[in-house]
Amino acid sequence: MSDTSPPRRRPGGRTARVGAAVHEAVRTLLEERGRDGFTGRDVAERAGVNEATIYRRWGTLDNLLLDVAVAVARLNQEQPLPDTGSLRHDLRRWAERMNAELAAPEGLSLVYAAVAARADAAADADRAQRITDIAAARAELIEQMLDRARARGEHTPDLSRVLDRLVAPLYLRAIFGYGQPEHDLDDIIDNTLAE
Amino acid sequence: MSDTSPPRRRPGGRTARVGAAVHEAVRTLLEERGRDGFTGRDVAERAGVNEATIYRRWGTLDNLLLDVAVAVARLNQEQPLPDTGSLRHDLRRWAERMNAELAAPEGLSLVYAAVAARADAAADADRAQRITDIAAARAELIEQMLDRARARGEHTPDLSRVLDRLVAPLYLRAIFGYGQPEHDLDDIIDNTLAE
Repeated sequence: MSDTSPPRRRPGGRTARVGAAVHEAVRTLLEERGRDGFTGRDVAERAGVNEATIYRRWGTLDNLLLDVAVAVARLNQEQPLPDTGSLRHDLRRWAERMNAELAAPEGLSLVYAAVAARADAAADADRAQRITDIAAARAELIEQMLDRARARGEHTPDLSRVLDRLVAPLYLRAIFGYGQPEHDLDDIIDNTLAE
Repeated sequence: MSDTSPPRRRPGGRTARVGAAVHEAVRTLLEERGRDGFTGRDVAERAGVNEATIYRRWGTLDNLLLDVAVAVARLNQEQPLPDTGSLRHDLRRWAERMNAELAAPEGLSLVYAAVAARADAAADADRAQRITDIAAARAELIEQMLDRARARGEHTPDLSRVLDRLVAPLYLRAIFGYGQPEHDLDDIIDNTLAE
């Protein structure tokens, strides 16, 4: 459907289009060159916007990268949760999805942003808070799966156990690359569900 | 003991002194201002060396930060391993030490460097390799503790289980700040040692 009625276009339309073009440019550049391989000017050129627009809106390239990481995390969170009727199968599908996300070029952006924000927490409390909010939103999704399992009367571990026993090894493997998580996924899930 | 015999000073003495001053400056600046809070020029001023020296030797500030992370990791690795006669107590002491390291200002430098190197692996294979080497050296230390336990006839988990069940949750908690690992350390170690 083409938009033939510009007068009714909602305010912020241009802002949203610039935002989308800039995010798309960042994701492409991350994939092509890695995180240290481009500057704000490269993003501006790729997105077809003025470099000053980027710095006015995001302040620094690090803030823009955090913004992209947050958007990717939100997008991932909008996918429907696994709901197979069994916690074991829900966790398995969730873990496979998390592995795919972590393997993507921007997959560790959130870890990078979290570590940077933590290192700078005193200097930039707002940035640290945004990371905490994303982590809390992810935890909330896991809680939904656990609540359903509890309602079905399944033996259900608590959230911190799922974070420690399932999420943590997948992240550590993605960060340091010490193993193929899919090979051990059944063991990892057995351990998460152990009574 | 003051050095009164410059002719016998070994070659590389100045290089080593510059390196030590620059590393010390980076660690201080990390603590004072966080990772995004300083430039190569700030490091040079703090260390009392020429800025060009820094860029000639390390190339980029990111490379210098990686170098500091590697040095800190090596220093931590030079501490004698816990050797209490019981794997449970060895792992407990090792975990407490790891928590203290992760809580220090430069504690997550290695994670940051690992994620950056992984994002840029195509562009900078050498940097990615250095991270892999450090991770392998740490794994080797854990193996030493496990070998001793095996020799004592204790039930001994394999390395990947220790990484998944002990190291991973401590890292994830340090990165996303979702819990005080010391409260759950006994549970985490029980799970690592479960038969």
